[in-house]
Amino acid sequence: MADQLVLDLTQALEDIPLIDPHSHIDPLNPVSRSLDDILGYHYYTELAHSAGMSQAPLAKDVPGRERVRAILQHIERFDNTLQYSWFAEIVKSFLGMTEDQISADNSDRLYDRAEKIFAQSDWEEQVFKKSNLEAIFLTNEFDDPLEDFDTSRYVPCLRTDALVFRLQEREIQIRLARATGVEVHDGPSLKRAIRKLFEQFLSKNAKACAISLPPNFSPKADAEALSPAGIFWVIAEHCREYKLPFDLMIGVNRQVYRNGVYQGQDLFDQRVSLLQYAELFNAFPQVTFPISVLCSNSNQELVSHAWIFPNVVTNGHWWYSNIPAYIHSDLKSRLQAVPKTKQIAYYSDAYKLEFVLPKFGMYRRVLANVLAEDFVRSRGWSENQAVELGKRLLRDNVREIFKI
Amino acid sequence: MADQLVLDLTQALEDIPLIDPHSHIDPLNPVSRSLDDILGYHYYTELAHSAGMSQAPLAKDVPGRERVRAILQHIERFDNTLQYSWFAEIVKSFLGMTEDQISADNSDRLYDRAEKIFAQSDWEEQVFKKSNLEAIFLTNEFDDPLEDFDTSRYVPCLRTDALVFRLQEREIQIRLARATGVEVHDGPSLKRAIRKLFEQFLSKNAKACAISLPPNFSPKADAEALSPAGIFWVIAEHCREYKLPFDLMIGVNRQVYRNGVYQGQDLFDQRVSLLQYAELFNAFPQVTFPISVLCSNSNQELVSHAWIFPNVVTNGHWWYSNIPAYIHSDLKSRLQAVPKTKQIAYYSDAYKLEFVLPKFGMYRRVLANVLAEDFVRSRGWSENQAVELGKRLLRDNVREIFKI
Amino acid sequence: MADQLVLDLTQALEDIPLIDPHSHIDPLNPVSRSLDDILGYHYYTELAHSAGMSQAPLAKDVPGRERVRAILQHIERFDNTLQYSWFAEIVKSFLGMTEDQISADNSDRLYDRAEKIFAQSDWEEQVFKKSNLEAIFLTNEFDDPLEDFDTSRYVPCLRTDALVFRLQEREIQIRLARATGVEVHDGPSLKRAIRKLFEQFLSKNAKACAISLPPNFSPKADAEALSPAGIFWVIAEHCREYKLPFDLMIGVNRQVYRNGVYQGQDLFDQRVSLLQYAELFNAFPQVTFPISVLCSNSNQELVSHAWIFPNVVTNGHWWYSNIPAYIHSDLKSRLQAVPKTKQIAYYSDAYKLEFVLPKFGMYRRVLANVLAEDFVRSRGWSENQAVELGKRLLRDNVREIFKI
Repeated sequence: MADQLVLDLTQALEDIPLIDPHSHIDPLNPVSRSLDDILGYHYYTELAHSAGMSQAPLAKDVPGRERVRAILQHIERFDNTLQYSWFAEIVKSFLGMTEDQISADNSDRLYDRAEKIFAQSDWEEQVFKKSNLEAIFLTNEFDDPLEDFDTSRYVPCLRTDALVFRLQEREIQIRLARATGVEVHDGPSLKRAIRKLFEQFLSKNAKACAISLPPNFSPKADAEALSPAGIFWVIAEHCREYKLPFDLMIGVNRQVYRNGVYQGQDLFDQRVSLLQYAELFNAFPQVTFPISVLCSNSNQELVSHAWIFPNVVTNGHWWYSNIPAYIHSDLKSRLQAVPKTKQIAYYSDAYKLEFVLPKFGMYRRVLANVLAEDFVRSRGWSENQAVELGKRLLRDNVREIFKI
Repeated sequence: MADQLVLDLTQALEDIPLIDPHSHIDPLNPVSRSLDDILGYHYYTELAHSAGMSQAPLAKDVPGRERVRAILQHIERFDNTLQYSWFAEIVKSFLGMTEDQISADNSDRLYDRAEKIFAQSDWEEQVFKKSNLEAIFLTNEFDDPLEDFDTSRYVPCLRTDALVFRLQEREIQIRLARATGVEVHDGPSLKRAIRKLFEQFLSKNAKACAISLPPNFSPKADAEALSPAGIFWVIAEHCREYKLPFDLMIGVNRQVYRNGVYQGQDLFDQRVSLLQYAELFNAFPQVTFPISVLCSNSNQELVSHAWIFPNVVTNGHWWYSNIPAYIHSDLKSRLQAVPKTKQIAYYSDAYKLEFVLPKFGMYRRVLANVLAEDFVRSRGWSENQAVELGKRLLRDNVREIFKI
Repeated sequence: MADQLVLDLTQALEDIPLIDPHSHIDPLNPVSRSLDDILGYHYYTELAHSAGMSQAPLAKDVPGRERVRAILQHIERFDNTLQYSWFAEIVKSFLGMTEDQISADNSDRLYDRAEKIFAQSDWEEQVFKKSNLEAIFLTNEFDDPLEDFDTSRYVPCLRTDALVFRLQEREIQIRLARATGVEVHDGPSLKRAIRKLFEQFLSKNAKACAISLPPNFSPKADAEALSPAGIFWVIAEHCREYKLPFDLMIGVNRQVYRNGVYQGQDLFDQRVSLLQYAELFNAFPQVTFPISVLCSNSNQELVSHAWIFPNVVTNGHWWYSNIPAYIHSDLKSRLQAVPKTKQIAYYSDAYKLEFVLPKFGMYRRVLANVLAEDFVRSRGWSENQAVELGKRLLRDNVREIFKI
C-alpha cells in the first residue's frame, strides 16, 4: 500500500534544512504558550464558525481553556480537512499524543499537556530543531523597530499593504511620520519617506518587500502620486534601487464575509489576470517578483509568466490554494514548464512556529509524489536527481533569490 | 489490476440508502415506459445531434421506436462518453443485456425488451429498490398542484426561475394570479403572492426552494421591486422566514445554440464569481444556500466560500461538471477544505428514475477512489471511517440540511 | 514500476501513421541543418533567457555554434522542463547520444554530430520515417506561392492573421494587391480579394484556414466591413462556400513581454470565454471550427461547446497548455464528454520536422495513460478498443475533418 519510492523521497526531503520565506511570526513571541495559540489560528476559528460555532467563545475575555474546548466541540465537523490534519500532526509531533485523543472530552488533558510542554525554557529551540528549520522570514509593518531578535534567524521583510492602501488614513500618516521623520503630502515627500524605510529595513537585514493585492489592482507608471497604484510604483522603484525582491501576493478581497471571525473574512474573485501586471514586469526588469496567487485558476498564468519573464518567480502555495489538491496540480505544471531556478517551493505563512512542521510536511509529501511520478518514473531520473531538484526549490532558490 | 480497497469502499457506499436532493422527476410519471424515454433524455439527443444527427427524428410525430433507432445509429460516435456509459449501465442493470448488444441493428430487440420490462406493474418499486433509493426531490413549477403523490417519497421543491426571470410575461402573471389569487403589480403584492406560494408548498412537505442563474446575475438588496434581482431578494426573505434552504444553481446561459435540440441549447461563461453573491450571503445568515456551479473553474471559489461562510454549502456536481474528470478534482478539494457537515454529495438531476442508479454509481466510484487515496492511504483512516465520511455526504447532510 | 498496459498501449499508438494537422514547417527547408536550428526554437531561447541568458547570443551575426553553446550553458537551469525533455529525446533518437551528454562542455561534440547527421542527403526521409509521419499541415501566409513542394505531404493551410488584424497596414495592402490583383478599399473589394485567395489556396490542395485570436476578440455579423471582426466574418463566409474548416486558435496576447526573445513575447489572459464565439457558431452551421485554446482554464468551455455545437471540434493542446500536466486533465474531460468523432488529438506546431517525434511521443504517453485509466481499467474496454479510440483521434478524425 505504501509507495516505497515516495516514502524514500519524502524522507530525503525532510533532511533538507528549511529557510521559510514567508510567515507572520512575532520574533519576540515566536512559539505557542498554550493550546489556545494553536487552535486560535484563524484556520480553526473560521472552520469552527463556518461549521456552526458562534463567535461568543472567540471574545477576548473568554479564557483560552474555554475557547479551546468550544473549538474542540466543533472539530469533529471538520476533521476531514487538511487544516485539521495539521493540528493532528502538531498533537502527535509536539504533544506526543495520538489523533484519537483529540476530542472535546479530552480538552483539558490536551490543554494541560500543551501548557507543560510549551513552558519548557528551550521550547523555541526544540521547535526549530524538530522542524529542521534554519531561518524564517517575518512580515513586518513599516514602523516595526526590528529590535531585540536575531535577524539572521528571523529575517525581516517590509510589508507595504498599509502604505499602499491606507495612506489616506490619518493614523497611517502619523505612524509613517513617526517612523521616518517625513510628513508625506506629495510625490517627493513620499519618496523621501519610503527611502528612509528601505534604509532602516536594510540596516536590519531585511531581505524582501511584500504586499498582498486585491484582484482588481493594476500597477501603472503614470498613476497619481499618492494613489495606491502610484505608491506601489514608488516602492517598486526602491526595490530596484535597493535590490530587494518584491513579493506580490495577488488576489485577495478583504472583508467579504463581514461578520466573519478575525482574519476569516477574506475571499477572492477568480476573474483576475497577471496581464494586469505586464506593465510592471516590463518596467522593472532588474526587480525579482516572487508571485503568489490566491486562486489555483491563476496558476497557469503564473507558470507562463515565469516561463517568459526573467523577473517573475513562482512563490509557494498560498492560503486557499494551500491544500494538496491544488498544490499537486499547481506544482506539476510548475515543474514541467518553469526553469527550476525560478521556483520557490513553499512558505508556511505561520503565526506560530509549531505550524512550520505540519505545513512543510504536507508540502514535502506532495512534492515527493510529483517527483516520483513525473521525474523518477516518467523520465527515468535517479532518486538523487529528484531530491536535488527538491532541494533547489526548497532551499537553494530561497538563498539565491533573497541573497541569504 | 482491480484496486480491492476501492472496490470494497464502493460496495459499502452502495449500501447507503439514497435521498436524491435534486431531480426533474414527474411524480405522476416517474419511470420510463419505453426506450424512447431513456434515449430521449437530452444528453443523448444533443450528443447524437452534435455528432451529426439531424433534428428530424426528434419531431413529435416520429414514433419512439424510430427515434430510438436514429439515436442508436449515431451512438457509436459517442460511445466514449460517460453519458453513453450511463446508458450502458441501464441496459445492463435494468434490461439484463450486455453493452455489446447496443447497436442500431439491435434497436428493435432493445426497444421490445425495454417495453416489456417497463410495463411491469411494480416497475417503479423495482427501480427504487434496485437503486437503493429512499426519496427523491422534485423541481416544481410555482403553480404545480403537488397532488396525487407521496410527498415523503417525492419531495417537492419550489423552482423559482419563472418568477424571477419571466414575471414580465403576461402568461406568468396569469399563472401566478391563478395560483395565489394575487395580481402582482408592485412590491407589496409580490410579497403577498410569494408568501402564498411558500405556504402552499410548505403545506405539501416542500423542503427547498431552487433557482438556476445566469453568469452575470448578482443579487442586490436595493434592486427595483419587480426586477429579477428584486424578486430574487424577496424569495430569499421568504426562505429566511419559512426556514427553507435556497438551492442556487449558478452559471447557465440559456439558448446559446439557438438551433440546438430541446434542452440542449444552454452553455455557460466561465467568467463568473461567487463574489457576485457576497451581499446575499451576508444579508441572510439564517438561510442555508446549497450552491451548485456549472463550470469546474468555479469550484475553488465554492470551496472557499463554504469554508468561510456558515450559510454556504457545496451541492453536487452539476451538468457540464458532472463527469468523473471534474467530479474527481472538485470532490478532492471539497473534502480537503470544507467541513464535512457542509457538503451535499450528489444529485441525479434525472428526468426518469432509471438514471438514479448509473449516475450515483458513477459518483460513488469517484468518491471511493478519493476516499481511498486521500483518507485511507494518505491519512491512515480505517475503511469504516472513510465509509462514514461518505455516508455523511450522501445521506446525513441531505437529512440535516433539508430537515428530512 | 513500469505499467505494462500503458507501455503496450503506447507502442500500439506509435504504430499509427501520423498526419500532423498544424505546424510552421517551411516545406522548402523542413529539417534542421544544425543544432542551432533545434536549440534556436523559441522554447529554448525563451527559457534560457528567462533563466538568465542575455539576448546577446541571439543576435543574427552570432555564429550558430556559439549560440548553441550559450544556450547549453543555461540549459541545466531548465532541465526539469518538458521542453528540455523534447530536446533530450531528439539527442537520443536522432543523434544517438545520451541525455547525460547534454552539457555546455560537450557543446562542440553535439554540434558536430548534429551537423554530420543532418547533412545526409535523405535526412528529410529519415525523419519522416522515424517519426512515422505521413503528412504535415503548413501555416502559409496569404501570398505564399505554394510552389516547389509536394502538397500531399506538406498540406497548405491559409493563415489569415495578417488579413484580419493588419489590413490597415500599407505593407499588407500592397502584398494583398500583388497576390490577388485586387486593391481592397471596401467590403466588395475585400470579398473579391479573399475569394481569389481561397481559389489559389484550394488549387494548391489547401485543407484548412487558420487564425490566432486575442482574448478580447468577438466575431460579429454586423461589424464594419474592414474592421478585424468584419474581415473575419468574410473569411468565415468563404470557408462556408469553399467547405474549408476554420481553425481558431483562441486567446493569445501578442508582445506582452516587450523585450522578450523573438517569438517569446506573447502571453494570455485567462479571462476569455467561448461565449464570445456563440454568434459565429450559430451563423455558420456548415463550417467546422477546430478550436484550440491557449489556457487550460478554457478547456471545459471547449468540451461543452463541442458537446453541444455540431460544428465545434476540439483541436490539440496548444503552446502554454502543451505540457503533460494540462494535456492529461484536458484530454480526460474531452474523452469523457465529447463525441469521439469530434476530437483532433494533437498537432506538433513544429518549425522543424525533428520536433514531431518528441512532441507526439509526449502526447501518446499521456493518451496511453488516460486510455488505460479511464477506458481499459475503469470501463472494461479491451486494449484493441482503446487503441482504436486513439487511432480515431490521431488519424481518422484528421482525415475526415480536413477531407484528406
